[in-house]
Amino acid sequence: MQEIQLKARPEGAPKESDFALVDWIAPELASGDILVELDCFSLDPYMRGRMDDAKSYSAPVALNSRMEAGGVGRVIQSASDRFEVGDYVFGLTGWASHAVLQEKSVRKLDIAPEHLNRALGVLGMPGFTGWFGLTQHGRPNAGETLVVAAATGPVGSMVGQLAKRAGLRVIGIAGSDQKCQVAENEFGFDHCINHRSFETAKALRTELAQYAPDGIDIYFENVAGPILEAILPMMNVHGRIPVCGMISWYNAGRLGGDASIETLSAPKIWRTILVNRLSVNGFIISDHWDHFSNFLTEVAPLVNNEQIKFIEDVTTGLENAPKTFIGMLEGKNHGKTVIKLR
Amino acid sequence: MQEIQLKARPEGAPKESDFALVDWIAPELASGDILVELDCFSLDPYMRGRMDDAKSYSAPVALNSRMEAGGVGRVIQSASDRFEVGDYVFGLTGWASHAVLQEKSVRKLDIAPEHLNRALGVLGMPGFTGWFGLTQHGRPNAGETLVVAAATGPVGSMVGQLAKRAGLRVIGIAGSDQKCQVAENEFGFDHCINHRSFETAKALRTELAQYAPDGIDIYFENVAGPILEAILPMMNVHGRIPVCGMISWYNAGRLGGDASIETLSAPKIWRTILVNRLSVNGFIISDHWDHFSNFLTEVAPLVNNEQIKFIEDVTTGLENAPKTFIGMLEGKNHGKTVIKLR
Repeated sequence: MQEIQLKARPEGAPKESDFALVDWIAPELASGDILVELDCFSLDPYMRGRMDDAKSYSAPVALNSRMEAGGVGRVIQSASDRFEVGDYVFGLTGWASHAVLQEKSVRKLDIAPEHLNRALGVLGMPGFTGWFGLTQHGRPNAGETLVVAAATGPVGSMVGQLAKRAGLRVIGIAGSDQKCQVAENEFGFDHCINHRSFETAKALRTELAQYAPDGIDIYFENVAGPILEAILPMMNVHGRIPVCGMISWYNAGRLGGDASIETLSAPKIWRTILVNRLSVNGFIISDHWDHFSNFLTEVAPLVNNEQIKFIEDVTTGLENAPKTFIGMLEGKNHGKTVIKLR
Repeated sequence: MQEIQLKARPEGAPKESDFALVDWIAPELASGDILVELDCFSLDPYMRGRMDDAKSYSAPVALNSRMEAGGVGRVIQSASDRFEVGDYVFGLTGWASHAVLQEKSVRKLDIAPEHLNRALGVLGMPGFTGWFGLTQHGRPNAGETLVVAAATGPVGSMVGQLAKRAGLRVIGIAGSDQKCQVAENEFGFDHCINHRSFETAKALRTELAQYAPDGIDIYFENVAGPILEAILPMMNVHGRIPVCGMISWYNAGRLGGDASIETLSAPKIWRTILVNRLSVNGFIISDHWDHFSNFLTEVAPLVNNEQIKFIEDVTTGLENAPKTFIGMLEGKNHGKTVIKLR
C-alpha cells in the first residue's frame, strides 16, 4: 500500500520534488471504519490551494502527510454495519492506493461498475460544482450570455452544456485551439476563444466583444487573473458572477500573462460591482452536499442519454500523480483529470 | 428662479469654482408637466460620482447644466391631471429654486407639511437604501454582527437601527468622536469607532476585533477604501456585503488615508470572496422603487413613534449648496444634508 505525501510547500507552481511516494500501512479499523482499495482518484485545481499554509476554507495539507483527493474504490475490509466488502464507494481517499474511511464520510455508489470514473467528474464534485453554481448563483435566463473559462474541464463543460440547454448564448475560454474545437464541437458551445492567442486582457476583451455583442450576463468564475480583467467591464447590469475557483491566482500570479493583472485594481472591481449592480457569490461545493441528490436526479439521466457529455484524461499509476497534477495546473490536461491505480 | 450648474469636472475633491449659481427661466409647461417651487433638496455622496465623465449607472451631469438632486416642493403651476396647485411632491428637482417635472416621475407626498424634510432622508431615498440593502442583500439574523460606516448618516443610521431591532450586534464607524457618541447614544449602536484615530487599515482592524470578537457577518458598504481593507479579512464564512456606495473612492482615493489601500489588491478581494463564501451585491436604489411602499409601510410608523431616529443637517440658501456639498464629502456634515431654500 502506498501514498503520495506533501514534502514541501511550493512557491508558485509546484515541482515534483514537493511530493514523495511512500509506503503506507493501514491502521487497524476502528468501529465504523472501512478499508478501501482505490480504483481511481481525482486531481483538481483546488488542491493547489491546500498546499499553501494560508487561511482557506479547509486546513492546508500538513507536510509529510497524504495529499487530499476524492477517490473511488472497493471496500476490502469493513468494521461498519453500513458497508460490505465488495461495495463501491466514493470518499476523501487522498492520493493513495488504499484508504481507511469513516462510514459517515463515505457515499455508496449506484453507478454501474464500468462507469466508476464518473463519480469523480461529470457526476461527482466537479459536475455538481458547475450545476450548483450555475443554478443557485448564476440564475440563468434564456437569451442571456454566459462566459466560462476552462471550458473543456469538468466544471466548465457542465456549466456550458447546462447553460446551452437553458437557452443561453455560451462562450467558452480555453488554453488551446484544440480545446476550443472540443468545446464547440463536442460540448456545443456557441464559440470558444483560446486565451493564449492574446497578449493582454484588453485584446482578449476585444475578441470577446465580437461574440458577446450584448455584453455578458453570467461569468462563471473559475480562473480569475487576466480573464477576469478582460470580462469585468463587459458585465451587464444585474450580472452574476458565481466564484468557485481562481486557478490563475493559486500560483500567486506566476502562470501565463498575469503581468496585465496590475491594472485590475481593488477599486475597479468594487466600482464595477456597484455601477453594474453585480451579484458576486463565492461558494465551496462541500457546503452544499444537501443538494447533491437533486443534482443526480436532474443530471444523471442526461449523462446516461449522452445529452450531457464529458471528457476524462486518465493517467495510470500512483507514481504519476504529481507530474500529472503539475501538468493540469499548466493546462496540459484534456478534460477531467483522473489517476487510475492500474 | 435660480439653479446651480456644474461648470467643470473636478479632479479629486470638488472645489466651489466647479459650480455656479445662475438665473433660470421656467419653460412653458408641456402636457403632464408641473412647475414646483422647492422647499428643500437633498445633498448626497452619490452626486460626486455624477460629476465624473466615467461610465456609471446614470449619465453624468453635463457641463453647464443643473446639478441633480432629489427635492421636495409645492406645485405652483400644473399641466397635469394628477397634480393640483398646492400639492406637495417629491421629484428629481436638482439644485434649484424651481423645477419643471413630468407627472410620471413625481411622487405626491402624504407626509405632514411640517415634516417635508423627511421625504429626503429617513423616509426618502437614503432611508429606503438602508432598508432595502439590509433586508434584501444583508439578510440579517439575530445574534450576528453588522458593521456600517458613515454611521450617523441617513443610510448608516437606518441600517444600524434596523439591525439593532433585528437583534444584531451593531458596530458603527464614523469620522469624529462626536459622531460616534451620536451613533451610540442617539441611534443605539453597540459601539462606534472613529476611523480618523487610526493611521492604517490594520490598526483599525485591531480595534474592530475588540468589538467584533465573533467576526463580521454583514458589512454594509457605503465607503470602501481603507475601511473595506480593514474589514474584509474579518468577514465570517457566508458573510454578506451589500454595496451601495464607495465615498472613499469617489474622489479617486484623495480623501483621508487612502495610501494604505495599495495593499488591498484585486486578488485579495477575490480570494476572500471565495474562501469565505461571501455574497457581494451591488445595488442602486432607483432600480427598486417597486419596494418603496413596503418600506414606508414598515418604517414610517417607526419614525413617527420615534423608534427610528434621524438627524438632519440643514443649510439655508441655494448659494450655499456647493460649499455644503464639499464639506459633506469631507465629513463635516452631521446627519442627512439638506439645503432649505429659505
